[in-house]
Amino acid sequence: HLIGQPETQLFCCSELLVYYTFGELKVPVDKYYGAQTVRSTMNFKIGGPSERMPIQVIKAFGILKRAAAEVNKDYGLDPRLADAIVQAADEVAAGKLDDHFPLVVWQTGSGTQSNMNVNEVISNRAIEILGGKLGSKDPVHPNDHVNKSQSSNDTFPTAMHIAAAKEVHEVLLPGLQHLHDALHAKAVEFKDIIKIGRTHTQDAVPLSLGQEFGGYVQQVKYSIERVKTAMPRIYELAAGGTAVGTGLNTRIGFAEKVAATVASLTGLPFVTAPNKFEALAAHDALVELSGALNTVAVSMMKIANDIRFLGSGPRSGLGELCLPENEPGSSIMPGKVNPTQCEAMTMVAAQVMGNNVAVTIGGSNGHFELNVFKPMMIKNVLNSARLLGDASVSFTDNCVVGIEANIDRINKLMNESLMLVTALNPHIGYDKAAKIAKTAHKEGGNLKETAIKLGYLTAEEFDAWVKPHEMLGPK
Amino acid sequence: HLIGQPETQLFCCSELLVYYTFGELKVPVDKYYGAQTVRSTMNFKIGGPSERMPIQVIKAFGILKRAAAEVNKDYGLDPRLADAIVQAADEVAAGKLDDHFPLVVWQTGSGTQSNMNVNEVISNRAIEILGGKLGSKDPVHPNDHVNKSQSSNDTFPTAMHIAAAKEVHEVLLPGLQHLHDALHAKAVEFKDIIKIGRTHTQDAVPLSLGQEFGGYVQQVKYSIERVKTAMPRIYELAAGGTAVGTGLNTRIGFAEKVAATVASLTGLPFVTAPNKFEALAAHDALVELSGALNTVAVSMMKIANDIRFLGSGPRSGLGELCLPENEPGSSIMPGKVNPTQCEAMTMVAAQVMGNNVAVTIGGSNGHFELNVFKPMMIKNVLNSARLLGDASVSFTDNCVVGIEANIDRINKLMNESLMLVTALNPHIGYDKAAKIAKTAHKEGGNLKETAIKLGYLTAEEFDAWVKPHEMLGPK
Amino acid sequence: HLIGQPETQLFCCSELLVYYTFGELKVPVDKYYGAQTVRSTMNFKIGGPSERMPIQVIKAFGILKRAAAEVNKDYGLDPRLADAIVQAADEVAAGKLDDHFPLVVWQTGSGTQSNMNVNEVISNRAIEILGGKLGSKDPVHPNDHVNKSQSSNDTFPTAMHIAAAKEVHEVLLPGLQHLHDALHAKAVEFKDIIKIGRTHTQDAVPLSLGQEFGGYVQQVKYSIERVKTAMPRIYELAAGGTAVGTGLNTRIGFAEKVAATVASLTGLPFVTAPNKFEALAAHDALVELSGALNTVAVSMMKIANDIRFLGSGPRSGLGELCLPENEPGSSIMPGKVNPTQCEAMTMVAAQVMGNNVAVTIGGSNGHFELNVFKPMMIKNVLNSARLLGDASVSFTDNCVVGIEANIDRINKLMNESLMLVTALNPHIGYDKAAKIAKTAHKEGGNLKETAIKLGYLTAEEFDAWVKPHEMLGPK
Amino acid sequence: HLIGQPETQLFCCSELLVYYTFGELKVPVDKYYGAQTVRSTMNFKIGGPSERMPIQVIKAFGILKRAAAEVNKDYGLDPRLADAIVQAADEVAAGKLDDHFPLVVWQTGSGTQSNMNVNEVISNRAIEILGGKLGSKDPVHPNDHVNKSQSSNDTFPTAMHIAAAKEVHEVLLPGLQHLHDALHAKAVEFKDIIKIGRTHTQDAVPLSLGQEFGGYVQQVKYSIERVKTAMPRIYELAAGGTAVGTGLNTRIGFAEKVAATVASLTGLPFVTAPNKFEALAAHDALVELSGALNTVAVSMMKIANDIRFLGSGPRSGLGELCLPENEPGSSIMPGKVNPTQCEAMTMVAAQVMGNNVAVTIGGSNGHFELNVFKPMMIKNVLNSARLLGDASVSFTDNCVVGIEANIDRINKLMNESLMLVTALNPHIGYDKAAKIAKTAHKEGGNLKETAIKLGYLTAEEFDAWVKPHEMLGPK
Repeated sequence: HLIGQPETQLFCCSELLVYYTFGELKVPVDKYYGAQTVRSTMNFKIGGPSERMPIQVIKAFGILKRAAAEVNKDYGLDPRLADAIVQAADEVAAGKLDDHFPLVVWQTGSGTQSNMNVNEVISNRAIEILGGKLGSKDPVHPNDHVNKSQSSNDTFPTAMHIAAAKEVHEVLLPGLQHLHDALHAKAVEFKDIIKIGRTHTQDAVPLSLGQEFGGYVQQVKYSIERVKTAMPRIYELAAGGTAVGTGLNTRIGFAEKVAATVASLTGLPFVTAPNKFEALAAHDALVELSGALNTVAVSMMKIANDIRFLGSGPRSGLGELCLPENEPGSSIMPGKVNPTQCEAMTMVAAQVMGNNVAVTIGGSNGHFELNVFKPMMIKNVLNSARLLGDASVSFTDNCVVGIEANIDRINKLMNESLMLVTALNPHIGYDKAAKIAKTAHKEGGNLKETAIKLGYLTAEEFDAWVKPHEMLGPK
Repeated sequence: HLIGQPETQLFCCSELLVYYTFGELKVPVDKYYGAQTVRSTMNFKIGGPSERMPIQVIKAFGILKRAAAEVNKDYGLDPRLADAIVQAADEVAAGKLDDHFPLVVWQTGSGTQSNMNVNEVISNRAIEILGGKLGSKDPVHPNDHVNKSQSSNDTFPTAMHIAAAKEVHEVLLPGLQHLHDALHAKAVEFKDIIKIGRTHTQDAVPLSLGQEFGGYVQQVKYSIERVKTAMPRIYELAAGGTAVGTGLNTRIGFAEKVAATVASLTGLPFVTAPNKFEALAAHDALVELSGALNTVAVSMMKIANDIRFLGSGPRSGLGELCLPENEPGSSIMPGKVNPTQCEAMTMVAAQVMGNNVAVTIGGSNGHFELNVFKPMMIKNVLNSARLLGDASVSFTDNCVVGIEANIDRINKLMNESLMLVTALNPHIGYDKAAKIAKTAHKEGGNLKETAIKLGYLTAEEFDAWVKPHEMLGPK
Repeated sequence: HLIGQPETQLFCCSELLVYYTFGELKVPVDKYYGAQTVRSTMNFKIGGPSERMPIQVIKAFGILKRAAAEVNKDYGLDPRLADAIVQAADEVAAGKLDDHFPLVVWQTGSGTQSNMNVNEVISNRAIEILGGKLGSKDPVHPNDHVNKSQSSNDTFPTAMHIAAAKEVHEVLLPGLQHLHDALHAKAVEFKDIIKIGRTHTQDAVPLSLGQEFGGYVQQVKYSIERVKTAMPRIYELAAGGTAVGTGLNTRIGFAEKVAATVASLTGLPFVTAPNKFEALAAHDALVELSGALNTVAVSMMKIANDIRFLGSGPRSGLGELCLPENEPGSSIMPGKVNPTQCEAMTMVAAQVMGNNVAVTIGGSNGHFELNVFKPMMIKNVLNSARLLGDASVSFTDNCVVGIEANIDRINKLMNESLMLVTALNPHIGYDKAAKIAKTAHKEGGNLKETAIKLGYLTAEEFDAWVKPHEMLGPK
Repeated sequence: HLIGQPETQLFCCSELLVYYTFGELKVPVDKYYGAQTVRSTMNFKIGGPSERMPIQVIKAFGILKRAAAEVNKDYGLDPRLADAIVQAADEVAAGKLDDHFPLVVWQTGSGTQSNMNVNEVISNRAIEILGGKLGSKDPVHPNDHVNKSQSSNDTFPTAMHIAAAKEVHEVLLPGLQHLHDALHAKAVEFKDIIKIGRTHTQDAVPLSLGQEFGGYVQQVKYSIERVKTAMPRIYELAAGGTAVGTGLNTRIGFAEKVAATVASLTGLPFVTAPNKFEALAAHDALVELSGALNTVAVSMMKIANDIRFLGSGPRSGLGELCLPENEPGSSIMPGKVNPTQCEAMTMVAAQVMGNNVAVTIGGSNGHFELNVFKPMMIKNVLNSARLLGDASVSFTDNCVVGIEANIDRINKLMNESLMLVTALNPHIGYDKAAKIAKTAHKEGGNLKETAIKLGYLTAEEFDAWVKPHEMLGPK
């Protein structure tokens, strides 16, 4: 298609890729984007395709551009153009035009080029819908119509917030809830299995396996809570702030109506940001959300680490849990079940912690009326939310739900433990109890046998007095 | 005083430092602490005095030990002993015994040694109150009485939360509020000063200086909000969980009563943690709080950076703000006012961001029933809260309140700006407006002179049409 | 093709995607990979396509598998099989089979599944070369032949080091050298342009613009040096350590020969790791390299920040540099050249700093004989190296080479500066000099005019005494 | 003493603290510091005493000021004054005047106030030595004489590098070497103890305990190497760069002579920085060193984690190592030896990783001719070096040297392991070997008993064929 300026001329065509050219620019004819997009691909050859602007941001732009078109129609935009923009924007939001967004994250720090990419694609697609000529900017102009009452400086942060909120609601929170429910079911299932506790990685007094899993359940429950407490400030949209936050070139009410429309389209409680200067110049809300994700990652690391160690073995580890065998372990050695889901989860956790530092540094380096680390920040926040959400599901389905307690092993460790000797104090006194423990430790025997051998009590007395299940709570 | 075990013997004394010895241990006679503390000083010679356990943790222990003694009295502890413990614990909480806590952060990761240090000091001080012999453990035993119904594993996290909550309420939040109020006053003071905006560090459309400061006000307002949203989980106390979270060796109701007593003593809404396993094995609540502090640091970095750049000069910088001159700049050059408060604040911000990573790593590395990065974690959280709180006050009092707008400079930059040309579009058309801007840029002239010279309008028309104060909001 | 185990059966086919199935597994017929790969795609649905194992790791595996085949041939592997493996491995190394590696980073932490993916692809491609049946494992078995004398535990770290070394040599170092040379050329070009210095962002004594750029040159020079000093430990290859580092199931000399072959194939000085236990259980070498990249990022942030501020304006900033205008700025406002390349570079820098934390956390969490954060670690190291290398080229070509000094502005700021007054001390004394400066600051005049007005000297004397170019060094 | 300006007047005195006043300033009469120092204490009430400028920086200043005085004498400074400065500076370097440096880290980011603190103290002490009046600045002026040919901007970074180099050489490297030697001795001691290997925390093929410790030895060896490779750029001194790097107001040769004198005084190979602009505006060398310390921390985390898990138990953990019991564990339970030294070390490691982020952020935020995160950066680098060095010694002396192999346990796990079955393949074939392993896993038996029971071999054959010590290397 013809793009750019009036002086655009056709130069060449090939069978694989046909270009029209503008000055030095060549725009593929099978793409809706135009000169501004192409120029960015030429000026920012950084990182390659895997570094593209997250598609969630593009889809969020689709929602925003639709909302803006609807509101602009209220304020006088030609309904024919507005409706075409709405239709094209919907296609962007639905992911139908993903191939038309080639730009990478490492572009201008305001995300302007991606905003222009969106404007170009929607404009050309709307032109097509209306029967016009691609690249003609007529009758739908990318700036005058698609970007009407907007600036990159307020649209990009708006798209960031929409994308982050959707990723949190569609991927992260469901994933965490899924994990929570599975862990909770295990905590219930394991509530009567009494096992040795471990503090400092050393043997300690007993607790139930259900209690141990209950700690994980609480961590995930709070993970969900932490993410949710960060959301109110994510629901605030910068749209309507235009270039510096003043709202120059918008109409009174535009900001509120756009936020309400986005809320309606997404079902999420978006509102217009109470202070647009803060909304453009700072992205503290994303740093805050990233901090919540960082805390979630910390919880995940703890849980996955515990499960991998409790499932270590089959012979030379702790061996209290049997993890599902998802892949062949050693071809000859049965029982070597590598905790691969734990490994994926802990790698994700480490990544999220690193992402948080990148977001922090980006967030802290805004200047004056604009923070220009926007694409990097949203990339990392989305990556963290997605990885945690996906990994939670994978970890749940491929590990947690299949965890079985190795009851023989748990009982064996429990019965061999010397910590239970404390239960004998009230019956035979501290000195004799200590003597039993020391003798057992020295000789490698268990408490019961040793106590009997020392003549301090009978087997029946031992069984009557040493009751781990009575050591699980206050009295 | 005599310490440690029955076989303790007096060995020597010198004029500077008199010791009693236990085996290889020597305990200073002028200190209330005992063998366990001394042993820790010998085994952990790491970092020196500046690395001591934060005194806020010690004071929080004072509050906790008092609360526990009161509750233990309810459950049957000899009132005479309980009252002496209460008195001694109060002295610890009041900072009267600070010299008796020599241990460093880099000890056992459960903080056990500091708990024992507290038990020893309170025990000996209570013994002294009751007329007993220091080191005799009679009539107040450090373990049996001071530590009754407690374990290091639940007391240390309890002290962590008390210390963090108090530091937040006594230092951080007041500091942030102080800064907020000062910035808000400036935003009001500057509300009618119209200035050039800057995006991408480049000239942009105007806003008021009050609007610019209003963005900072919003950031600090949200900083306060962010810290507050992290507090509910800080108010949860582990006390009553004892060794592994089961509450073994405590009484039913102990946990709730201790939390209520601590709440009463501090005036803060502490409650007993709903899940003690999580409360011992994970410190996600501190990671969460640290994440909030990290976000505050990000806001502070932005604000302090802006102010330093807006105050740069006196001749070759932006020069829109005059910062107070707190120290002599160059002896010969007037007007070189180094933004030293901004520098302190941004250094603090960087430190807090680093602290957050340390807290994150510590929080993620707990195993089984106990996280053993406790002293390191609380050290960093307290450090971040204190530094941010103190720096906010210093920055406010020594910088923000004294900031003056350099109105001549602001107006000059404003009037020289080419961005105002956009206001002429409706009157003379886009093409002529652009011609004015391009000519002015090329020749270095200002818009008004250039416009008149080009014959597009009169001086009166320019003044009537170009009104920056009408560019500050939507229409 | 048929894959997996003998019991594999054909189940269904469709026109778009034809599968053979193994148990629940379906393997696409148009792919060389097999059951192990497919199983991983099912068990690790984390992050989507953009999270695939970096292709550089796959290509490095190609090099390693070829080297191993050649060495295995020396040790008796059937030359016909070895040669087919070599040919297939070469195709992997050359990027011809990129579509056959669908696995994501978030898999088992040893990278075993990617090693198996490589084994399957090379095996099937070699079988094809030899006229066999895909999936038959005959005559080239993925484990017995392609993976001969190898384990995932030593091959994956070997591929990590090969990939990192190649990325450093092919992308990062050339990029940094390119930037270095361009900055150096600018430093030479600008050597006689004297300008105001700035410390604390405040006006200071002069230096030449060439000296200022010379500081950047030194930073980049040291960046190159820092990366190079980290490489010796990257050149150490784990190959030959097999499962736990002992080299069980390899032959004496295998490790050394593989390293030598890889060195020969790549032209890089690889050697066998002197301690295979360290090489499997720790990836300190990658942490070290990441630390060097982190330091490079710090340098880049400084340089790009300076250039963006020195180029700020056009009217209301510092304006000493004119940056190339790569994209249209404001349609109406000439001279608003957004420093987009600086923004991309500083975003990259922030990302690299975050990546470094992820690598650090992963590196610190290895246990016993194996670190299982391998895929995450290498992903981040490669990402950092690539982004820094690419961004250096982009920043150089689209910004640095086009930077022009705005000499009028530089001279104006220079001449207006009050700092030059120090040059008058020896001639008219400190007191008069200070009086001139204070008067000029108060009245807004420049030094020369003020000095003349105060009657302390003549214009000729001022010009003779105040010579900024004599203030650029020691005497 | 009288301080500040000529108009200083005596106002009041009290018995505890006698002040002279300058304007609003009160300077303690028992201190050598003066008005500039006092003013800083008033303007920067941030963090309290534990946040003081590290004393190592002050001592480094002592060295630098002595060196500068000696060189200034060569260039004409009155020998009487120079010698007094030398004597006073020596006292600062020797730590005799530590009480006279009250300033905190959170001051001006150039460290100017600490440089002035040093100048004031040395000046007053030199005045005292020469029989003059404190505060009179006569005959030794803090600026004109003590700071001659210097600026805060070049002296503070010089002191940073001297302090860092000395801490590395005096604390860190000896600590690491100490740890290295102890681990090496253990590797030798344990070389014949064959044990089960663990990968993915799961049982794997055997290695010797000596080999396992050998991996740690290699990590520490490389730790030392990594620190050393960062030092060349630390040995570069900024002295002679004065305010912006040009060396204005110094003499040709001054920089080189100062560096040579510092080298001579310290015995370390200091040289003058080849580019003073870089040396003032960037502190990449400290970021680089911090990166090396970060890598050391990663190694320490791995080693300490391994040792804590290998020593876990006494009954329910891995139990392969017996760690020294430095503190009473449970009063009643023998064998509960908490790995407290591992805990201190891993907390230190986490702190160092956090410090590295703070240093990174500070290093990246320099502007133009000066980085103003200097005090924060050096505080963190020194903290990391000290903590790692001290913790290495503590960990070595209180843990490593006392580690004993629990040979019974190691052998038991080894003999119970199923992994050894691979040794039977060549003798009875893969199928029978696998049958033995599967049966043993299912029934819980050991390999030998199961193999005999299945009738596949005799006890003698098993012993002859299964020889773990032949599985420790290539053949």
